[in-house]
Amino acid sequence: MTGAGRSGGRAVLETLRAWGVRRVFTCPGSTEAAFLDATLDHPDFEVVLTPHESIAVSAADGYARATGEPAVAYLHTHLGLANSLGHLNAARLAHSPVVVLTGLKPALLQSHRGFTCVPDTGRLAEPYVRAQWQSLRTEDIPADLNRAFRLALTEPAGPTWVGLSQDLMNDTCTAPVPDPQRYRPRARTAPDPELIREAAALLASAASPLLVAGAEVARHGAVGELIALAERLGVPVVNEDRRTYERPGFPTSHPNFAGLYDARRATVRDSDVIVFAGCHCFTEFEMPVGPDVPEGARVVHIHSDAAEIGHIYGVDTGIVADEGLALSALLAALPQDGLAVRAGRLDEVRAEYLAGTGPLPPEREDVENVAAVADALAEQVGENTTVVGDATTTGAILLRRLPQDPPHQYYTTSSGSLGWAMGAALGVKLGLPERDVVAVLGDGAFQFGPQGLWAAARYQIPVTYVVINNESYAAVAAALRRYGGTAVERGEFPGKDLSGADVAAIARGYGVFGQRIHKAAELGEAMAKARAHPGPSLIEIMTDPDYLGP
Amino acid sequence: MTGAGRSGGRAVLETLRAWGVRRVFTCPGSTEAAFLDATLDHPDFEVVLTPHESIAVSAADGYARATGEPAVAYLHTHLGLANSLGHLNAARLAHSPVVVLTGLKPALLQSHRGFTCVPDTGRLAEPYVRAQWQSLRTEDIPADLNRAFRLALTEPAGPTWVGLSQDLMNDTCTAPVPDPQRYRPRARTAPDPELIREAAALLASAASPLLVAGAEVARHGAVGELIALAERLGVPVVNEDRRTYERPGFPTSHPNFAGLYDARRATVRDSDVIVFAGCHCFTEFEMPVGPDVPEGARVVHIHSDAAEIGHIYGVDTGIVADEGLALSALLAALPQDGLAVRAGRLDEVRAEYLAGTGPLPPEREDVENVAAVADALAEQVGENTTVVGDATTTGAILLRRLPQDPPHQYYTTSSGSLGWAMGAALGVKLGLPERDVVAVLGDGAFQFGPQGLWAAARYQIPVTYVVINNESYAAVAAALRRYGGTAVERGEFPGKDLSGADVAAIARGYGVFGQRIHKAAELGEAMAKARAHPGPSLIEIMTDPDYLGP
Repeated sequence: MTGAGRSGGRAVLETLRAWGVRRVFTCPGSTEAAFLDATLDHPDFEVVLTPHESIAVSAADGYARATGEPAVAYLHTHLGLANSLGHLNAARLAHSPVVVLTGLKPALLQSHRGFTCVPDTGRLAEPYVRAQWQSLRTEDIPADLNRAFRLALTEPAGPTWVGLSQDLMNDTCTAPVPDPQRYRPRARTAPDPELIREAAALLASAASPLLVAGAEVARHGAVGELIALAERLGVPVVNEDRRTYERPGFPTSHPNFAGLYDARRATVRDSDVIVFAGCHCFTEFEMPVGPDVPEGARVVHIHSDAAEIGHIYGVDTGIVADEGLALSALLAALPQDGLAVRAGRLDEVRAEYLAGTGPLPPEREDVENVAAVADALAEQVGENTTVVGDATTTGAILLRRLPQDPPHQYYTTSSGSLGWAMGAALGVKLGLPERDVVAVLGDGAFQFGPQGLWAAARYQIPVTYVVINNESYAAVAAALRRYGGTAVERGEFPGKDLSGADVAAIARGYGVFGQRIHKAAELGEAMAKARAHPGPSLIEIMTDPDYLGP
Repeated sequence: MTGAGRSGGRAVLETLRAWGVRRVFTCPGSTEAAFLDATLDHPDFEVVLTPHESIAVSAADGYARATGEPAVAYLHTHLGLANSLGHLNAARLAHSPVVVLTGLKPALLQSHRGFTCVPDTGRLAEPYVRAQWQSLRTEDIPADLNRAFRLALTEPAGPTWVGLSQDLMNDTCTAPVPDPQRYRPRARTAPDPELIREAAALLASAASPLLVAGAEVARHGAVGELIALAERLGVPVVNEDRRTYERPGFPTSHPNFAGLYDARRATVRDSDVIVFAGCHCFTEFEMPVGPDVPEGARVVHIHSDAAEIGHIYGVDTGIVADEGLALSALLAALPQDGLAVRAGRLDEVRAEYLAGTGPLPPEREDVENVAAVADALAEQVGENTTVVGDATTTGAILLRRLPQDPPHQYYTTSSGSLGWAMGAALGVKLGLPERDVVAVLGDGAFQFGPQGLWAAARYQIPVTYVVINNESYAAVAAALRRYGGTAVERGEFPGKDLSGADVAAIARGYGVFGQRIHKAAELGEAMAKARAHPGPSLIEIMTDPDYLGP
């Protein structure tokens, strides 16, 4: 690809198109004119406007997660970048190849600290990106952008940032667009055979082994390899810890599935060999009350990123390789016979897991409880449904009760950046247009991204938002309960009461079909109406404000 | 003040109370429990919950601007801080003493990069604050916070940041709270008499002098001194450039008032001596087409912050001093008689100014225009009204047409961080409860802070929001027009169309009294209804989507 003289803005668009990008998620200002103007040359290129940058970046993240392809968010100055950082953190944790472009004022204004200028804008992005660079010359724009795409996709993948000054964008660029194929090496690396033999021997002789499936297993397309290994060994598989959960690495519908990793569970405590495949070990939420790996257990950690192995706890065998190649090598290295006899172990572990998904806690008559809502939701999640989960207090309950088969039945974030699903669900739907996409949020999370409704309505993206409205920051009250001070004594929880918003009415104000219901039993009918509606819709279901989580 | 053993969280509250803080604007999470718990000891201390950090910080900023006293926003982790940075920039530019506290996970989790942890959270705040520090020991909390208050108030005032780890907050602190009176020096400095004589001589001999009133004149309470000087000299006074406008330094109702500084105006071009008092010279929005100071004019710049003088253009006489002391010294140094004869100059300049506020541009029949809205608004702005302005395309028109008498009739931001008024108006109203507070926003700006409506409704803060809804990012289209490419050729403006939201309906969803009107003539009645309503209200007025600004 060659580029005759054209504006920097057109060179940006050409580079995006070379990388296969056909839409950009943006909240522009005056500094993006040259790029926006260039998009008019290509009727197949879509400018997806969002009225807040948090939506632009979470939508790009959802799209990148769902497709595995790079997605672009184009923001305006340090202010737009700052507004997006929370969800850029979500993209970072999911290794999502989001390329964030940010228009900056002309160089002279940057020197003068002009309007919307601060020194070194890219530094704001630094905690969240693999690389950040502000283009210094118009001629460098295609190569700088090409590098950002390359690094976003280089394992361990993740967001990158490029700053584009308005003067460079308006100037003439003659540099050709590099050919992306020459900058996208296949990064699938094979494991050291010696370490595979060691791990195979550990597994073969284990009395109660456990496989733990991380998000990277799904992201690297290694779910089949993990299933084959689990079936050959006849062992239980758990998905990784809730606190790091981004997407399932193992199907919840598989007979070997046994819930989520949690060091407090008997299943985990009783395991003598644990194989973590593509897991992040671990993301602590609070001061640990005990180790997250049971003492005495032998640990195998397979991960494509060496930096993940031994992050907090030491391992017996650390294998740096693509998870799929490592898992098939492990399967091949198992002895043809002579595997330890583990009769009954899988049944026991499954029984423990199923007990946790059993009868609901007693219901209050006057107000719905969350477990009932989760079960009603579970009935709505078919093979072709994708749930985009973003509920804080309710998150653990959803993970326990909803079907989650990889690759696409469940996406969530371990970022803590509430409101992520408001944009992410839009990106997921655009990336997987044939699927039925349902975003599930708490009302607290909803309030971090109501502007997503505008984009959903504007582009008629048929996502169903389900807002579980307990009218509370239950997480705040739960923290006060753990703190155990005056709040607990008095039963008063400052910072908890989030009542007053009629979320369904707000949705209607944005042009989204909104319904409010009060009982889980009404969810089926409401979902049917929502799905029959041609555009986006929102269901608000009111739940117990006093329930503070499991 | 002494502190016996109490939690770090209680020590934080004690320090806040010692500095006179009686409310905190917050969007908390789990890391703020010890502080929230402590607030229950003091029924007079108010926890103002906001469902997004941008509202917490802009409300604190509004409160600090309106009162001149420090205000506190308490946020949760790097995510909450990131969400607030845009409006922290607004506080920075207005020299607003906002102390931002941010709860962090315990130190162990910070090492482990646990949930909601990134390295060095305070670095995110660095471009926006005068100082950032993460407390390292519980015993240091009172002194660290005391320092943050001191620096926030030390001239040139501005925001500061303190990170507070959860483990320190829960631990016992025995350190006493310092006495704030001992840490708040009077920073009013007097000018060098020699420089004052020089400036007085320049002014006395000038044929067509001009005084320019900056925001710092109002912030430092020097409006009376500036009026006295202007009256003695009989010269016109303009408020500072629109691009740096935060608040008026000179009353628009004064007979010497002559509009806004703009180097393209004849009034400015024809001036031979220009005195900038407490102005920021300058904040450029685009590449300058000519100098912002007319060639040949002699320049006197009075500012309390030496770093402001000579920022872009050189000066003839730079005077570093409190603006009030400098202006009175200047008045005293003027000759008793022998001032240059400037008959007619003031009348000429006033005539030029008044021409710009004259007849409206021709109206479209089918849709209202912005100038008519501005004039209808102007009729609603009484002596006791405070307008909190946050309109992009419309901003210049509002500044030209609304009454703006210091100290409290008009506040706005030069930050470019849209949505600022959604929270700032709440803070202004809490700071000035006797005043009638009207926030004026464009629909684009509104979409950056709809969550402010939740807080307005929850605390029944009787602010009237007026949203001028042109269903457009007119600034984006205006930039494409200036760019002059394909967009102009085709009359297609990607990124402009923001139609679809029913802002009044969204307001009602938040529990705010919402009205939509279509004509400026309806504004009076709508405002009367809004003001009669006991709680907050919102008026949405639909205007021409094709108007791209002056």
